[in-house]
Amino acid sequence: MSTPSGGSGEFLFIEWLRKQVKPSSMVSTGIGDDAAVVSTGRGDLLLTIDTVVEGVDFESGKATPKEVGRKAVAASLSDIAAMGGVADYVLVSAATGEKFGRAAMEGLYRGMAEVCREVSVDLVGGDLASGSKSLVVTVASVGHVPEGKRAILRKGARVGDAIMVTGELGGSLLGKHLAFRPRLREAAILTDICTPTSMIDVSDGLLLDLSHILEESGVGALLHEEAIPVSPAAEELARRTGSSPMDHALSDGEDYELLFTVAGEDVSKLTQGEPLGVGVSRIGEVTAEGLRMRRRSGETVSLEPRGYEHRIE
Amino acid sequence: MSTPSGGSGEFLFIEWLRKQVKPSSMVSTGIGDDAAVVSTGRGDLLLTIDTVVEGVDFESGKATPKEVGRKAVAASLSDIAAMGGVADYVLVSAATGEKFGRAAMEGLYRGMAEVCREVSVDLVGGDLASGSKSLVVTVASVGHVPEGKRAILRKGARVGDAIMVTGELGGSLLGKHLAFRPRLREAAILTDICTPTSMIDVSDGLLLDLSHILEESGVGALLHEEAIPVSPAAEELARRTGSSPMDHALSDGEDYELLFTVAGEDVSKLTQGEPLGVGVSRIGEVTAEGLRMRRRSGETVSLEPRGYEHRIE
Repeated sequence: MSTPSGGSGEFLFIEWLRKQVKPSSMVSTGIGDDAAVVSTGRGDLLLTIDTVVEGVDFESGKATPKEVGRKAVAASLSDIAAMGGVADYVLVSAATGEKFGRAAMEGLYRGMAEVCREVSVDLVGGDLASGSKSLVVTVASVGHVPEGKRAILRKGARVGDAIMVTGELGGSLLGKHLAFRPRLREAAILTDICTPTSMIDVSDGLLLDLSHILEESGVGALLHEEAIPVSPAAEELARRTGSSPMDHALSDGEDYELLFTVAGEDVSKLTQGEPLGVGVSRIGEVTAEGLRMRRRSGETVSLEPRGYEHRIE
Repeated sequence: MSTPSGGSGEFLFIEWLRKQVKPSSMVSTGIGDDAAVVSTGRGDLLLTIDTVVEGVDFESGKATPKEVGRKAVAASLSDIAAMGGVADYVLVSAATGEKFGRAAMEGLYRGMAEVCREVSVDLVGGDLASGSKSLVVTVASVGHVPEGKRAILRKGARVGDAIMVTGELGGSLLGKHLAFRPRLREAAILTDICTPTSMIDVSDGLLLDLSHILEESGVGALLHEEAIPVSPAAEELARRTGSSPMDHALSDGEDYELLFTVAGEDVSKLTQGEPLGVGVSRIGEVTAEGLRMRRRSGETVSLEPRGYEHRIE
C-alpha cells in the first residue's frame, strides 16, 4: 500500500480501515506502511496493492498503454523497495474502459512485463475485466525481507538521525513518472551498508511523504534548503508554472526516490563514492517536532506538508 | 486468477499473455490456473488476483456495497480453495465510481472484513483510488500449500477418474452469489482424505469450468444427468426463465463449489457420512475425449461448454 494522507478524506479513511481490521499475530505491520509485513511461518513476506485510474493517475492522451502498464508495476515495486525488501512476484489486473481494444491491452501488459524483466521479478497472475467506464489498473507485489535484514518501516526515525534521499526531485511529470525504474537494487545495497531507521518512497511529494515518516515515528524534521537535490526537470517545469524549482522539488509527486533516515555515523558510508550507483543527499535531520526548513539565507521557516493526494468527497 | 475462457476474446488474450511471460524456475504454475504456484525458497505460495466491475459482475442497484465487498473477497479466496490451499492474506483495492461516498466505501470494506473473519484470513493491505467512472474492486489473495500436500491444478485428470462436485448447482443469482462462503474448510478436509487429480471452482458454470479441466488435462468427460445436484434455486429460476433447472445447473456461474476429479477408489471416502460437511456428488467420469452427458433416458448427447464469459471486443 503506497497511498495517501495528509489530513484529508483518504487519510481519515485509512485510519478508519486500520481500526476495522484486527490483524492476527502473523501480521507484524498491517495497513498503513508502504507494504504489509506478514509471517508465513517460513520467514517474512512483504505484500502491497495499488490501483491507478485513468484521468486521475494518468491520462490516456498523454501516456501510451505501455507506459501506463510500466508505471503501475514500477510504482508497486517501489513500495517493496521502500521496505528494504526484495521483490519476487507481481500480480496484475486491468478493468478496461470503453474504447480500450486488444492492441491497447497488449501494450499495457508489454509495459508491465518490461519492468518485471528489468528487475528480475516474475509476473505470475493477471486478470482482465471489461465493462469499466475508466481504465483501472491494479498491481499487487509480493516480496520478502532477506535473511539477516529487517523490514524498514515508516516508524523508527529518531531525533538526531540524518534525513537522506536518493537521486533528484521535482518535475517528474515531464517524463520520469512514466519511465522510472523502481529503486530495488539501491535499496538492497543501502540495507547491506547500514540499517535505515525509517524509509518511504517519494510518491506523493517529498514533504508529504516525509510527514508520514514524522507522524509514524512521532518526531519532527529540519530540512536544509541548499541540500535538497533539485532536478533539471524541476527547473524546466518551474519556467512553465511560475512556481520555484524548490517548490517543485519539495512538493511534486512520482519521483519514486527512496527517502530514509539513518544514524549520523552511517551518512558517509552512503555519500562517499556513490555506493548505491545513484547520488544520495543528506537533506536534513530529525528533530523533536515540527517540519521546518533552514533557508539558504539562514532563516528557518515552518513548512506545510503538501503534495499529491487522493480525495474522497 | 480465476478467469474465463472458452474460445472467445479473453481466452485468446490469456493465451497471448502466457506466451509473453517467461516465468523463472521459481514459478511452478504461472498464468492460467486458479492461482499461481510459486516457490519462496521456504515452501510454495499460492497467489491470485481478481477484479469485479460494476455493471458487469454486479449491479449497484441489486447488491449493497457490503455484499459487493464480501463477494469480491470470497471469490478470490475460492481460487485458493480450488488449489487445495490454505488462505493466509488478502489485499484489497477499490477504484470508486462517481456517486460512491464514504458510507458506501465503509460498507464495501465491512463486507470484505466480514468474510476474512469468517475464514480466519488477515486483510493486510488496502488501496483506494477515486475518479473511476465505475466501481472497480480488485482482490489479491495469498495462500500456501500445507506441508505434505501439493497444489491441485486444473491439469492432472486421468481417464477413468470420477468427476465430483460439492454442494448444489444453479440459480446462484437468486442470492448465493452474494452470500457464499469460500470452500476453504472443505478443500482442507478433501485434501486430508485424498489427493484430487485436478480441481477448479465453479465460477463460470459447471460445463465451462469442467472444460478448463478437460482442456488442461487433455481428456474428455461423460456426465450422468441424474447425478447432477440441481439446487432449489435452479428450479425456482427455471420457472422464471423458461430454461430447465438442469440447464441452470450446467451453465449458471457463481456457485463457487469445488469441481474435482479423483481416483475411483477415493469416491466412497468422500460420499459416505458427509466428511466435508457438505454433500459431494459423483457426477460423471473422465473419458479420453469430448464432453458428453448420459441423459436419464439412457441417451448420450454431446454438450457445448457454455457459461459466463468476459469478452473483449
